[in-house]
Amino acid sequence: MRVVSRFLLAVTVLAFVAGNGYAQDGGMKKWSKGKGWGWVWGPQDEVGNLNEMTDASRLAALKLVTQGKVYDLGLPYDRYSYKWPGHSPGEIMSFRSPAGVRSQKDLPFTTPEGGNTGITAWHSNAIFMNDNVATQIDGLGHITHGPKNEFYNGFTSDEWGGDFGVRKADVTTIPPIVARGVLVDVAGFKNVEALPSSYEITVADIEGALKAQNVDVTPGTVVLLRTGTARYWGENGRDHAKIGQHDSAGIGLTAAKWLVEEKGALMLGSDTSGLEYGPPKPADSQAVGGSFIPVHVYLLVQQGVHILEFNNLEQLAADRVYEFAYILTTNAIRGTVAGTTLRPLALR
Amino acid sequence: MRVVSRFLLAVTVLAFVAGNGYAQDGGMKKWSKGKGWGWVWGPQDEVGNLNEMTDASRLAALKLVTQGKVYDLGLPYDRYSYKWPGHSPGEIMSFRSPAGVRSQKDLPFTTPEGGNTGITAWHSNAIFMNDNVATQIDGLGHITHGPKNEFYNGFTSDEWGGDFGVRKADVTTIPPIVARGVLVDVAGFKNVEALPSSYEITVADIEGALKAQNVDVTPGTVVLLRTGTARYWGENGRDHAKIGQHDSAGIGLTAAKWLVEEKGALMLGSDTSGLEYGPPKPADSQAVGGSFIPVHVYLLVQQGVHILEFNNLEQLAADRVYEFAYILTTNAIRGTVAGTTLRPLALR
Amino acid sequence: MRVVSRFLLAVTVLAFVAGNGYAQDGGMKKWSKGKGWGWVWGPQDEVGNLNEMTDASRLAALKLVTQGKVYDLGLPYDRYSYKWPGHSPGEIMSFRSPAGVRSQKDLPFTTPEGGNTGITAWHSNAIFMNDNVATQIDGLGHITHGPKNEFYNGFTSDEWGGDFGVRKADVTTIPPIVARGVLVDVAGFKNVEALPSSYEITVADIEGALKAQNVDVTPGTVVLLRTGTARYWGENGRDHAKIGQHDSAGIGLTAAKWLVEEKGALMLGSDTSGLEYGPPKPADSQAVGGSFIPVHVYLLVQQGVHILEFNNLEQLAADRVYEFAYILTTNAIRGTVAGTTLRPLALR
Amino acid sequence: MRVVSRFLLAVTVLAFVAGNGYAQDGGMKKWSKGKGWGWVWGPQDEVGNLNEMTDASRLAALKLVTQGKVYDLGLPYDRYSYKWPGHSPGEIMSFRSPAGVRSQKDLPFTTPEGGNTGITAWHSNAIFMNDNVATQIDGLGHITHGPKNEFYNGFTSDEWGGDFGVRKADVTTIPPIVARGVLVDVAGFKNVEALPSSYEITVADIEGALKAQNVDVTPGTVVLLRTGTARYWGENGRDHAKIGQHDSAGIGLTAAKWLVEEKGALMLGSDTSGLEYGPPKPADSQAVGGSFIPVHVYLLVQQGVHILEFNNLEQLAADRVYEFAYILTTNAIRGTVAGTTLRPLALR
Repeated sequence: MRVVSRFLLAVTVLAFVAGNGYAQDGGMKKWSKGKGWGWVWGPQDEVGNLNEMTDASRLAALKLVTQGKVYDLGLPYDRYSYKWPGHSPGEIMSFRSPAGVRSQKDLPFTTPEGGNTGITAWHSNAIFMNDNVATQIDGLGHITHGPKNEFYNGFTSDEWGGDFGVRKADVTTIPPIVARGVLVDVAGFKNVEALPSSYEITVADIEGALKAQNVDVTPGTVVLLRTGTARYWGENGRDHAKIGQHDSAGIGLTAAKWLVEEKGALMLGSDTSGLEYGPPKPADSQAVGGSFIPVHVYLLVQQGVHILEFNNLEQLAADRVYEFAYILTTNAIRGTVAGTTLRPLALR
Repeated sequence: MRVVSRFLLAVTVLAFVAGNGYAQDGGMKKWSKGKGWGWVWGPQDEVGNLNEMTDASRLAALKLVTQGKVYDLGLPYDRYSYKWPGHSPGEIMSFRSPAGVRSQKDLPFTTPEGGNTGITAWHSNAIFMNDNVATQIDGLGHITHGPKNEFYNGFTSDEWGGDFGVRKADVTTIPPIVARGVLVDVAGFKNVEALPSSYEITVADIEGALKAQNVDVTPGTVVLLRTGTARYWGENGRDHAKIGQHDSAGIGLTAAKWLVEEKGALMLGSDTSGLEYGPPKPADSQAVGGSFIPVHVYLLVQQGVHILEFNNLEQLAADRVYEFAYILTTNAIRGTVAGTTLRPLALR
Repeated sequence: MRVVSRFLLAVTVLAFVAGNGYAQDGGMKKWSKGKGWGWVWGPQDEVGNLNEMTDASRLAALKLVTQGKVYDLGLPYDRYSYKWPGHSPGEIMSFRSPAGVRSQKDLPFTTPEGGNTGITAWHSNAIFMNDNVATQIDGLGHITHGPKNEFYNGFTSDEWGGDFGVRKADVTTIPPIVARGVLVDVAGFKNVEALPSSYEITVADIEGALKAQNVDVTPGTVVLLRTGTARYWGENGRDHAKIGQHDSAGIGLTAAKWLVEEKGALMLGSDTSGLEYGPPKPADSQAVGGSFIPVHVYLLVQQGVHILEFNNLEQLAADRVYEFAYILTTNAIRGTVAGTTLRPLALR
Repeated sequence: MRVVSRFLLAVTVLAFVAGNGYAQDGGMKKWSKGKGWGWVWGPQDEVGNLNEMTDASRLAALKLVTQGKVYDLGLPYDRYSYKWPGHSPGEIMSFRSPAGVRSQKDLPFTTPEGGNTGITAWHSNAIFMNDNVATQIDGLGHITHGPKNEFYNGFTSDEWGGDFGVRKADVTTIPPIVARGVLVDVAGFKNVEALPSSYEITVADIEGALKAQNVDVTPGTVVLLRTGTARYWGENGRDHAKIGQHDSAGIGLTAAKWLVEEKGALMLGSDTSGLEYGPPKPADSQAVGGSFIPVHVYLLVQQGVHILEFNNLEQLAADRVYEFAYILTTNAIRGTVAGTTLRPLALR
């Protein structure tokens, strides 16, 4: 109750500060209750609803930090980590090493004769990996839909794809994210270790959990839904069988729409590889004309709402931290479509 | 004057809150004026002086944010970007694409017959890159020194290296960094676009710049020294000649020691690939027994102080933002020795 | 004179043996003087004019071997090697090594406790490279032409490309090549170390060299044209400036057509990265409707004739070996469009 | 009988031609019956017993070709292919493609305005793979043994390894192989589809098969032992379970020693990933002081005899081709320890 009130105050301030002629709901610039966002930010926009973030909204989010405590929501990645099988495998390879440099003898400045009498050396690594592994944020260039392969805002793969990734809405266009975050501990609310395979999280589940947690989703909030899957990640996500058993639980279109259109969620995330339950039921698939990932289509393509994946929510749940400042920055790699191997922060 | 006072107040609070029996200088747990840190955190420690961060210090740093304004200090990376030639090259390769998936015909669920009548598809990328490119933080496992190839805290490459990176002090052990940051605009103070090749930044330069900026380095501060090199980065760091011309400017051992031992800097960083000027003069090289990167040896191996590289300080300088909350999280890739392609934030 | 006679005899035998109802020129199945080949091998063919090879032709080629002497025509490749800048860079990375395995401690069977008391270990490498580096054979799926992106035999990139290379006419469809080979030492004939930049080898050059060498191109012959460029390759092709200076010399459309249509050459190759001189003169470019590599379009797309690149012809020239059995097998990597880092053999 | 006689004649000629003062067995330069080879080629040698090949031996091998028929012994490789799990995974990635180049718009010469009115484009691929996949030849730098990590001829990993592979006895030092080859169809002799898991091929098995095939191993012969495993490879070795079930069958030390020391085999190969049965019985392991791959230690390190792996012997067996000319060239990639994704030829 207390924290909600405090945040509503902040939002009021925000609405005042950001006042820019738009008569929008909940202090947002472009969000409409019952409609959400969509392609409302102009024909050149690559940012989507993250445009809602302002100095005032960031300041309000940071005001939620009263203890200085930080939670690292990133899951560590290595060659053994669970990932969607369609992605490329990953290797971290010692590229230069003290023993290797000494044996290789290719760099004069590393030798005693070259002045390196103190024997300085270094480790560095070559990384081969996918832009969709471990803790991720899906960018608005990730998913396309329809015969023209359109992604967010009508950009097409033909025009804006290429050999080296996408040239519109790649991750370098995702602004730093500083926003209010809310944990929805669905697994905790259902009193299970982790939700079962393909379980569809309902609106009632979310409302029930929020009520039990005494916290609400207000417009502009990052919503993180806990299935419990990340509890099986361990050191490096090596137990593919166990993780895979729960990784297919998540929200469907009904909950996604409710969160975006009725509650104004800024981003939706969870502790699985794909946020949405799968495979989709026929109604969900057909709602976007037939798709294997209708929630992705709805959020990324139609609404311009980013998706957060494999956020480690275990410690937040254990500590019953339900409201926090959520801070996330992506890799600055041009062309990539998702922030990958990230470490989002929850600060309180 | 104003900002310094405010921060000193915060530091006082911090010292009080963190009071833990150590009689240390400047509210720090283990820092000694005239000595800095070193291997003082116990034989198993992999964190170094970032152990100084506490709830109180993070809270104090966040209190510096009064406007909610965010600066992205990351430099975008792609196949053309400038890097130290000893590192592996980088490629971002479209791994799956709408056109490629359709031509490849290897996934039944992507076909109309498989239910995908709405034609959903996706872009993803395979990344081949080095763990030391674009905006970085050097981890304590990066540099080794001496005949036993020791890195920080006496861990040796023999014992803790391997085929897949390092197994002590890799980047997954670097905690989220939330700390007070200070910009030292050396190029601005010297009234040049960028410092010349191999220029050694002196203590006088730093003191002069700090005085002109009316800000000070207090114990626990992240210090970012601006050479001006990042102004030539542009879209992707493609102008190797221009960047290379200034990239060798930086601090030497004298300034590094002064910042760590006299001022208690938590981390040292700049807008170049290596922080320190190079090649080192004989005195600097010999001070660590003969080395091509004595400042790296001093900071990473001997002091347990992390190094920040290629932080984009241009907008901070242009806006005369000299004090801020610095927030940085690394990639969560086991074995890697440096956070790579990062986007640190300066918040004020 | 002697060798020519011997080969003509072989060809006669071949024509007799291969006699199969086609009334074709020079003992070939489908070649027509003045026309060459083209898409003459049926709508599903992925092999092109290498279909001309038969047991008899291979046997005839092997009969040229009278001494058992072997020439390795491959140029060694590593991270420093010259390549066309549009291709991906290459790294050979120690993936597992005795020191790395011992440090990594991830494989119980490598430890003394696991029975490895004799301390067996191994080196292996991860390779990141392009399918168009060092000594190559361009496959018929390499080049496309026209608005439909057609390659040989009308296969289109839309239908037969994909995320993982090409699915028609990839290198796995290239049969083992065992054929008569002829060296045309153009640089030797012109009495230069290497042909100058962009030099177009003329029909007169080739006829002159063949005459001086007392050897002829008969139908079914692999023709290797020496520019002298490979003499600058050395250990690993590291002198990019020197190699690049001569690498643009080669044949144009006139010589290519003469060799294929008048002489029945089975394949055309040289000691450069691209066989043809470049950039093309307007007449050559316009002959295929406007192209930056008209000889590639002509040979690979229109004629179904493979191209050999960066064959090391230096020792053959030094030893004045002008006729030989040419043996080449490609990598067996599905999807790749060129045999790469190969070692063709010339046997005599 | 006939073929044996013919080859013995050839060997006699060879012995005469190669006569060089050594009084060695079977026409070999350095082989001793009951002892084999070993480190007998001088302290700088990186070639091992492939030094036995001469113009005369190559010529004799090629004389076995009487029909001009060629067998491709390579197994095609892609991202799905079976491999030893300790090796790095493989990806073939479309690096440049007609659609990608057009979308990427980074190369002026590919545009109509740049002269490319005929719309020429190309496919190329980036390859990430291991140097030990699909059809291979193990180089003499692959395996090390003992506390000093010695490989063939006493070269040590410390001295001759490094970050970029090995610098002694890498694959570029393997000469082109042209030699007499003999198939030993053990699976056929035992009348099974494929040998069972961990089956140790005995000397009696080999002698029985050779007798049934009416062919013998003479000094200088490449010996290929068929377990039948390759019959399950199919298009790309995707059925890991089935392949893995038979892949552990092979020879032990007894058969290896007999073939090398009593018969003078030039190389030993099979149609599995590792030639030898596994895991080794205690006696075999202890014979080299305790090892998980004693046959590799014996052949590569102690004898200087190369190993051939995953040679596809199915068609040879089906056609009952037991004696042939074996021709193999490796990739020319410096530092790599095994020829990989090769296509050896059997010619008859």
